[in-house]
Amino acid sequence: MNIEEKYFSNITSRERAIFEGAISMGALFHQFIGTPVNRNSVASLELAISKSLELQPATQKVEVAIDLKKLDAAMSDFDYVSLSGEMLDVKIHSKVNDVLAIIRIEFIEDLKYPLMYVEEIRE
Amino acid sequence: MNIEEKYFSNITSRERAIFEGAISMGALFHQFIGTPVNRNSVASLELAISKSLELQPATQKVEVAIDLKKLDAAMSDFDYVSLSGEMLDVKIHSKVNDVLAIIRIEFIEDLKYPLMYVEEIRE
Amino acid sequence: MNIEEKYFSNITSRERAIFEGAISMGALFHQFIGTPVNRNSVASLELAISKSLELQPATQKVEVAIDLKKLDAAMSDFDYVSLSGEMLDVKIHSKVNDVLAIIRIEFIEDLKYPLMYVEEIRE
Amino acid sequence: MNIEEKYFSNITSRERAIFEGAISMGALFHQFIGTPVNRNSVASLELAISKSLELQPATQKVEVAIDLKKLDAAMSDFDYVSLSGEMLDVKIHSKVNDVLAIIRIEFIEDLKYPLMYVEEIRE
Repeated sequence: MNIEEKYFSNITSRERAIFEGAISMGALFHQFIGTPVNRNSVASLELAISKSLELQPATQKVEVAIDLKKLDAAMSDFDYVSLSGEMLDVKIHSKVNDVLAIIRIEFIEDLKYPLMYVEEIRE
Repeated sequence: MNIEEKYFSNITSRERAIFEGAISMGALFHQFIGTPVNRNSVASLELAISKSLELQPATQKVEVAIDLKKLDAAMSDFDYVSLSGEMLDVKIHSKVNDVLAIIRIEFIEDLKYPLMYVEEIRE
Repeated sequence: MNIEEKYFSNITSRERAIFEGAISMGALFHQFIGTPVNRNSVASLELAISKSLELQPATQKVEVAIDLKKLDAAMSDFDYVSLSGEMLDVKIHSKVNDVLAIIRIEFIEDLKYPLMYVEEIRE
Repeated sequence: MNIEEKYFSNITSRERAIFEGAISMGALFHQFIGTPVNRNSVASLELAISKSLELQPATQKVEVAIDLKKLDAAMSDFDYVSLSGEMLDVKIHSKVNDVLAIIRIEFIEDLKYPLMYVEEIRE
């Protein structure tokens, strides 16, 4: 089956780069939010998040930074917390043909919201 | 803050409708896969999925159908199963200004894959 | 296969009631944390949580209360939030033979932690 | 606050070892099911699962094995799959005072079910 032709011929490469990156960002947030984490486990969690999302279509690179200050601020008496949207700063590089879209999530304090947006498009 | 201007002026309404719908589809899959479900609970789960995703930006309507035949085929001796990608058929209607994008997930047997794609765009 | 004999003959009914209720509580937290929610969707989410967890072995009743004050306090500019452990107050009734265990989760402010414990056992 | 006395004096060390291990097993399943995975990412995912669950109370060691044969059997045309309960073989070592409980999940083909049970208790 020609998947590209059958399912994706109605959108441009630019649109598809945005599409695939956005799927991966929504996936990342809702798969990993709630995971137990502290400073000792943060590196292994960041790596697993990157490695798993980089498997998805068009997703070339996933840069994950969990904010250690926010981790510390949320810290419980049990020496770990649940990963939350406030702690996430992620860039997903999604490439389709010659178009690279960089999708970003960062917590915007003024909005009290982990905003996902298209940070950059290179064509 | 003018969020539109600051974060979304680099993409068109059409691109943003695709973007927001794709986020919600990735979110839906990774939030709800794994949920215990059987024929008695399927209606309440479909409703909760729709109601929760319809809260996200631009997402106007979420039509969720959990495939009862695939539910039955996967059924365990404990009278329920974990929701899987094979069982999902979902359409997300994402609207930005005058552009409506309908994002679809359906399981494609030939690919052994729950494919997400842009089913239709109305401008 | 006699599942009881093969897999559960090494623990008492009391221990198994605790075991099954604890599984369901861990499941509930990690399945649903992160779900988009606001006051309009909270009833449908509480219902879906109850209905899905009540499918698990020994789990007879799941009473879910999402704290509306904490929901309001966390509210974003986009009129919804991600469900977090702080908002959850849940009791799971797990019954094995004549033993009923009630497993509770509630957020303990002093610990900054959503504590799970055995609230009551009736034999 | 004396947490032990206030919340856990109604159960024995043996019961609490079972309780805490069961929570972590329910957590593990519902946090990570659905994660994109293939042979290249499996080691990083197993590590992150172990590291995150080992943060939970009483959980000393988490041995995670993702079944590569089942991974291969489920493989999609996109060279990855969603982690499912069929692929999981996990042992959680939970210790409270002098009691060690080993909680296991393994997929039982005859039941079509990923069964969680208490594999062993050492006192």
